[in-house]
Amino acid sequence: VGELSLIEWIRARFAEGLSRPATGKLIVGPGDDVAVIGLGREKVALKTDVVVAGVHFEAGASARAVGWKAMARSISDLAATAAMPSAAVAAVALGEPGGRAWAEELYLGLEDCARRYGSPVVGGDFASASGPTVVAVSVVGRFDCEPVLRKGAAPGDALYVTGELGGSILGRHLSFEPRLAEGLFLGRSGLGSAMIDVSDGLATDLRHLCRESSVGAVIEEANIPISDAARKRAAATRHRPLDHALADGEDYELLFTVRPAEVERLEREWPGPARIKRIGGMTAPGSGILIRGSGGTERPLLLRGFEHGLPQGGPR
Amino acid sequence: VGELSLIEWIRARFAEGLSRPATGKLIVGPGDDVAVIGLGREKVALKTDVVVAGVHFEAGASARAVGWKAMARSISDLAATAAMPSAAVAAVALGEPGGRAWAEELYLGLEDCARRYGSPVVGGDFASASGPTVVAVSVVGRFDCEPVLRKGAAPGDALYVTGELGGSILGRHLSFEPRLAEGLFLGRSGLGSAMIDVSDGLATDLRHLCRESSVGAVIEEANIPISDAARKRAAATRHRPLDHALADGEDYELLFTVRPAEVERLEREWPGPARIKRIGGMTAPGSGILIRGSGGTERPLLLRGFEHGLPQGGPR
Repeated sequence: VGELSLIEWIRARFAEGLSRPATGKLIVGPGDDVAVIGLGREKVALKTDVVVAGVHFEAGASARAVGWKAMARSISDLAATAAMPSAAVAAVALGEPGGRAWAEELYLGLEDCARRYGSPVVGGDFASASGPTVVAVSVVGRFDCEPVLRKGAAPGDALYVTGELGGSILGRHLSFEPRLAEGLFLGRSGLGSAMIDVSDGLATDLRHLCRESSVGAVIEEANIPISDAARKRAAATRHRPLDHALADGEDYELLFTVRPAEVERLEREWPGPARIKRIGGMTAPGSGILIRGSGGTERPLLLRGFEHGLPQGGPR
Repeated sequence: VGELSLIEWIRARFAEGLSRPATGKLIVGPGDDVAVIGLGREKVALKTDVVVAGVHFEAGASARAVGWKAMARSISDLAATAAMPSAAVAAVALGEPGGRAWAEELYLGLEDCARRYGSPVVGGDFASASGPTVVAVSVVGRFDCEPVLRKGAAPGDALYVTGELGGSILGRHLSFEPRLAEGLFLGRSGLGSAMIDVSDGLATDLRHLCRESSVGAVIEEANIPISDAARKRAAATRHRPLDHALADGEDYELLFTVRPAEVERLEREWPGPARIKRIGGMTAPGSGILIRGSGGTERPLLLRGFEHGLPQGGPR
């Protein structure tokens, strides 16, 4: 079951208006990094993410790191809409790895990340399972600014990414810091016109952003921030470091756009801690998603992110 | 890993004050039917529940019924605190049963229940898994009254339960209707002094309520509403129908208490649709949880609910 195709099927059904909240107002439905519901005067963000043993982590991974990752994924999604995390719940089907000590370490990892980002674990559900352990974390948050969505980019906008990309399979996929301060800055300052977190790989997530914004994009090969891990990974694969930076999943960096007139303010006011890199710009609808090589030639950006699993078969 | 012992470990850690929301106020933490967070002027309910193939449903169960159940469990928890469901997200690790058609039916079942109770599915996450399918549903809601908690019962309060108990394994565990209208009535009217949904079995859930309220209880054997399914189940086991009504899990009825001076108003104003039965009353702290037989003799109520799995090894 492809994640994208099933989500598209769900979104299509949703568009039919099958269901609306009885007690709230739906502001952002399925298909963005978080859902946004109006409850009274509050805009509430809601996101769930699931990690599965053997898919998102190896059986030998530290339980504490697995807990961190399970929580950090949802917080990264909130960051990518400029939502402030408020509270989290965790549903755990404990199979392999399992046992009481493993479960306690898992919870401590959830708590490590939750505490760091102000989103305590306020409840949960546990069941025993005969297969791989599954951890589903849901986070609620609120906004003190307008949500920054995948839609909102316009032709001419500059395209930026935080941090460095690729090779997260070598360890960073378990220990990354969600870009919460950065996402909140982009929302509160009004500088972010569109945003997504890079979980499926830059190429795939740029495609999502372009589709939701109904724009094209050109990225500059020379400007893609390639991580040391991508270079290290490339030494062990037949791919170039650039390919890893473009295609590997689970970077959990922020990919965002800024109006051309705001570029100077962005670069002047950028608070960090992650660095940003301008990697390209948005183009007219229908002009596709291109990558410009160092010689100036443009070619289509191949979709080399993967729905499930890295090309090398590792976790994502 | 016992569910209760791990939850107790988590609550103990939580009591140490490890983490508090940065952007909200924690009103009710782990250990009640839902968590309650203050976001701005809103009180927001948050609950997650997980169902696992082979534990909570048989592999041959209808995917649509599994979806219904996965959603209805969380809504039942909201009902038990008088929260109004507003939106839901579903995290699915799709293993066995699986496949695209099964996943679509699962989603339709989630949607059936979500629509009926005004809590649309606004997002989700999917992953493939090699083991049993796991479905984790999280629901947010709001309150237009004070939450009704497990704590709040006082000695002298009358003890009531909705519907009929026992034998849900014969089918009702997949198709039950959460007692939302009933829970909201008990909250809005101010009549419910404490409440819990009966998911682990009457004996176990009464124990939870007594512990949180720091009271004892006496229930009347003759007043326990025994379902036809409990009688049918008893014909196939060595237990009495009463034992099934006391011990079987997954009734998803509401167990609640009412001040003695309010009993007459409760019975006069009760709106249904589920019927209620007065099954006993609350007693002084330390007097234990007793059951009074038809001859008037009192004996301790044995804890015969189970953390995972019915005594007959079926789903719960």
